[in-house]
Amino acid sequence: SLAHRCHHRSTAMLDVPFLPFCAFLGTLGLLCVAMVGTWCQHWRGGFSLDGSFRTFNWHPVLMVMGLVVLYGAAALVYRIPNTWSGPKLPWKVLHGSLALGAFILTVLGLAAVFRFHNSQGTPNMYSLHSWMGLGTVLLFSCQWAAGFGAFLLPWAPAWLRALYKPIHVFFGSTILMLSVASCVSGINEKLFFSLKNGTMQYKLLPAEAVFANTLGLLILIFGVLVVAALARPSWKRPDSDSPDSRQVRDVLGG
Amino acid sequence: SLAHRCHHRSTAMLDVPFLPFCAFLGTLGLLCVAMVGTWCQHWRGGFSLDGSFRTFNWHPVLMVMGLVVLYGAAALVYRIPNTWSGPKLPWKVLHGSLALGAFILTVLGLAAVFRFHNSQGTPNMYSLHSWMGLGTVLLFSCQWAAGFGAFLLPWAPAWLRALYKPIHVFFGSTILMLSVASCVSGINEKLFFSLKNGTMQYKLLPAEAVFANTLGLLILIFGVLVVAALARPSWKRPDSDSPDSRQVRDVLGG
Repeated sequence: SLAHRCHHRSTAMLDVPFLPFCAFLGTLGLLCVAMVGTWCQHWRGGFSLDGSFRTFNWHPVLMVMGLVVLYGAAALVYRIPNTWSGPKLPWKVLHGSLALGAFILTVLGLAAVFRFHNSQGTPNMYSLHSWMGLGTVLLFSCQWAAGFGAFLLPWAPAWLRALYKPIHVFFGSTILMLSVASCVSGINEKLFFSLKNGTMQYKLLPAEAVFANTLGLLILIFGVLVVAALARPSWKRPDSDSPDSRQVRDVLGG
Repeated sequence: SLAHRCHHRSTAMLDVPFLPFCAFLGTLGLLCVAMVGTWCQHWRGGFSLDGSFRTFNWHPVLMVMGLVVLYGAAALVYRIPNTWSGPKLPWKVLHGSLALGAFILTVLGLAAVFRFHNSQGTPNMYSLHSWMGLGTVLLFSCQWAAGFGAFLLPWAPAWLRALYKPIHVFFGSTILMLSVASCVSGINEKLFFSLKNGTMQYKLLPAEAVFANTLGLLILIFGVLVVAALARPSWKRPDSDSPDSRQVRDVLGG
């Protein structure tokens, strides 16, 4: 409540209600998922598990669903005002479960591209997109495991939680930015691969290119808005300046 | 000082001194500039103004210098503890001048790629990289103009400064994240363009690909560290909760 009051004055004039903003973000996230699905279904030949380019098509869909949209939903759990009172453990379980769902979709998305490469005889992990993307997923797995160990295991000491919490919060936003940057470089790369012949060249901006470029910009906007919502002082849990004692109480009590 | 004290407790255990961190960031930024220059000089044929691919080579070099490294330096000016006392106007002029220098390098970097495309008969502005990159530069130009109008013109009203300051701070970090994402997608795209024949294929990971992929990761790390430094509560100007009155006093007095 002290940290809350500190910042409240300077942002009071810009106050936007959280829940309508969330509804807008949810719509934007669903639009991104619908668009990446439409792109792969309508222009890239649809989906299958046979190791062809139709297996690859699961990669962008699962990454946008998992590492961007579901990840963003998981990140925003503690900004819902209902989470600010009562026992914290159910919300922690929700946050961890959504993040785990995002992680599982992400791993399936990686499996799709590795299976495609392997069945085509294409090397894995050579492009900057792949280096950045795999780095992002590795960071995400560390983030999930460290968050589980520090915040969900009841015997984690309070000093460790207090020490690790700002690190967890920082990497939460950072991983989302990295995953958005990975998506953008992946869409860009895929369009150069797919649109190279005749009248469909990327540089002639066919409908598919306009559609997928727009998808890339919407993913960027989604990521920036989630990071902005996370950073907004007036949307943070008001008692964020005493995390240790409260968490210990909740875990012992819940 | 109130906001400072609010956050100080939870971060005290993780305190890193600002100036050594800055020296590290400066070294990393210079390394990025040296590496992008080396890439273009050693593997991509060097520099010229004749409209060929050697004119294009100015594009990555100027973008990394301007929109990433010099931009990052401009963003960090108010984190230098010396800026926290005494008249603020000289520091505002330094911040605005570094940002203007970054903007000029950025515009020259855009000119290089447009000149290359035009002299080759290649369309401009078709890739997602170009859409995101130009969007980033347009946001940067709005950010500079609005910052000049609100914070450097002495007749800007205090309520406008107080209202706009958090927006300016937010877009400061956002534009840097977007420019880093633009760099990464641009490096990825350039490697696919350049390395497509025979034994030099990108997917065979020749030395150039390892070098430029590493450059991309270092640019990402630079951007994340600058954004982290900007977000760190204990490195913020302690009296950040009363910006309006102080700024009005400084401008009138200085």
